[in-house]
Amino acid sequence: MAAPGMSRSFDLETLRWGTQLVKRGFAKMQKGGVVMDVTTADQAVIAEEAGAVAVMALERVPADIRAQGGVSRMSDPSMIAKIIDAVSIPVMAKCRIGHTAEAKVLEALGVDMIDESEVLTPADPYFHVLKKDFTVPFVCGSTKLGEAVRRIAEGAAMIRTKGEAGTGDVSEAIRHRRMMSRAVQMVKTMDDAALDTLTDSFVARYDQLNQAVLEDMGLEEADLDAAYAGLPYEELLGGIRDVLGEVRKLGRLPVVDFTAGGIATPADAAHMMQMGSDGVFVGSGIFKSGDPKKRAKAIVEATTHFDDAKLIGEISKELGEPMVGRSADELDVRLADRGH
Amino acid sequence: MAAPGMSRSFDLETLRWGTQLVKRGFAKMQKGGVVMDVTTADQAVIAEEAGAVAVMALERVPADIRAQGGVSRMSDPSMIAKIIDAVSIPVMAKCRIGHTAEAKVLEALGVDMIDESEVLTPADPYFHVLKKDFTVPFVCGSTKLGEAVRRIAEGAAMIRTKGEAGTGDVSEAIRHRRMMSRAVQMVKTMDDAALDTLTDSFVARYDQLNQAVLEDMGLEEADLDAAYAGLPYEELLGGIRDVLGEVRKLGRLPVVDFTAGGIATPADAAHMMQMGSDGVFVGSGIFKSGDPKKRAKAIVEATTHFDDAKLIGEISKELGEPMVGRSADELDVRLADRGH
Repeated sequence: MAAPGMSRSFDLETLRWGTQLVKRGFAKMQKGGVVMDVTTADQAVIAEEAGAVAVMALERVPADIRAQGGVSRMSDPSMIAKIIDAVSIPVMAKCRIGHTAEAKVLEALGVDMIDESEVLTPADPYFHVLKKDFTVPFVCGSTKLGEAVRRIAEGAAMIRTKGEAGTGDVSEAIRHRRMMSRAVQMVKTMDDAALDTLTDSFVARYDQLNQAVLEDMGLEEADLDAAYAGLPYEELLGGIRDVLGEVRKLGRLPVVDFTAGGIATPADAAHMMQMGSDGVFVGSGIFKSGDPKKRAKAIVEATTHFDDAKLIGEISKELGEPMVGRSADELDVRLADRGH
Repeated sequence: MAAPGMSRSFDLETLRWGTQLVKRGFAKMQKGGVVMDVTTADQAVIAEEAGAVAVMALERVPADIRAQGGVSRMSDPSMIAKIIDAVSIPVMAKCRIGHTAEAKVLEALGVDMIDESEVLTPADPYFHVLKKDFTVPFVCGSTKLGEAVRRIAEGAAMIRTKGEAGTGDVSEAIRHRRMMSRAVQMVKTMDDAALDTLTDSFVARYDQLNQAVLEDMGLEEADLDAAYAGLPYEELLGGIRDVLGEVRKLGRLPVVDFTAGGIATPADAAHMMQMGSDGVFVGSGIFKSGDPKKRAKAIVEATTHFDDAKLIGEISKELGEPMVGRSADELDVRLADRGH
């Protein structure tokens, strides 16, 4: 019976990873939870013990990327592998925007989810990774509905509504959460004609990017017309219409929508949940604070019990020094503006 | 008789906190007094002994927030709880502008009043906390009548006309007190048509904020028209008309209106009272001076006897080093400009 058994397990493996449904389902299992940035196996263990639903393995938290500057790339796979070995919860890792080779390396390495992240230095100035081509699920950042819909059409199984990573200032996360909620509300009540118009405007973004490639080639107007047929992203254009249809039907994104960027306290996490987030990512806010262990646990509890103000008050006591942070309106580089 | 007794006390508790009338009444009891910023239980005891009507519990006084930078958030609840335990006078604490979760934590903690304060880093770039939804009273800062009226319509039970906190320079407080007094004088003599026009312009500010969310979403003019119905703040717009009606009838704000920001000497406090303030907040001015105990007492006396110049001269003698401060026109960051 060995052969049928093996065959069956092979099918299960395919099923487990293969379909859009399964990829989105995996992301859904994180719902209501906290994903924590960790840079070492020790930090990953602290995160797991604190109740994180997943960890994001990366070499430098956003606050350090901001402070140190330079080019940020995929982390050393041996560091990611050590973290995979150290914990039993899912491990995510970041690739640069549009860096398909980094994404393939991470997939082969066995990470549970890839974050195509604006926190790293963007690689492709025109396009994101075509995530439908992968069996591993992806999470992508977005500030607006159009950006989220394009990422989902490309195959993202999860959205991070992005604040300003590495600031400890939650205001940009709140800004983009408000924009996202308002846009979803609008789509919910749109008739077919309005939805068509919106679809066209979201599709136009890909046209612009294709046009940008051609313009950067130094082509004339006439050449542009000739060269413009056969977009590589043509197959995605129908996807945008489908995703927007799902948004209208469901009254929400068809994938889970977390908030990330600037969350540094239990009350910050609770506030984002009260505003309708499906969960939160916490980066620099934990391991740049005075007592990461205690703060990590408190942020997980506040995310779960986001409506229990008394409890959140209790667990906010004596958490040690919070991340010092930087006010979002004083920044030179805005990471959330990367990607389209 | 235990059960009826308990039931009665429950009703009293509801009455004590529940209504707009009671929330404003609580604030009115502070009238003529000084609210002092304190960062420890010891400072709170000094403030109480000096005759403060209430203390504001916070981790860093504005002068330190200015000097140290970073993101300023709600204080550690255990520090606030210690101050609540240390004094018998009311204890206030600050939440970030628009950070509803922090406000709920402070309410659950049992603070007597919440200050939705621009001294902390603002959380929501569009909207303030909807203070009507709370049973605890709120105080909010404002520089202009429109800002004050919007805050009162949202449910604020007290206004702080704001100078520049953490400077020790009273000039911005005087500027905004003059603007506020002049505006109230104008409203007092307005006919219905003029009041309608003013109401419309104050209402328009919410429209702008809603519009800002839509514009940040990247919508075109035509989309905006379609999307614009159903403001979440629609319910507040009627409130603005009501509050302005009260201002005209009473010839003053319908809630107590203190002055805060830059007050550092007994004469500063007396000057603000002579200009029509209902009381004063003193922050860095006391505990950044050479002899906080003596200065705190002198500022309370000067606030009470604001018209007795001879007495104010006496109590201003040998107060030790005043707060060094910074001239308001040399600042990079102006806290009073935060919020709308």
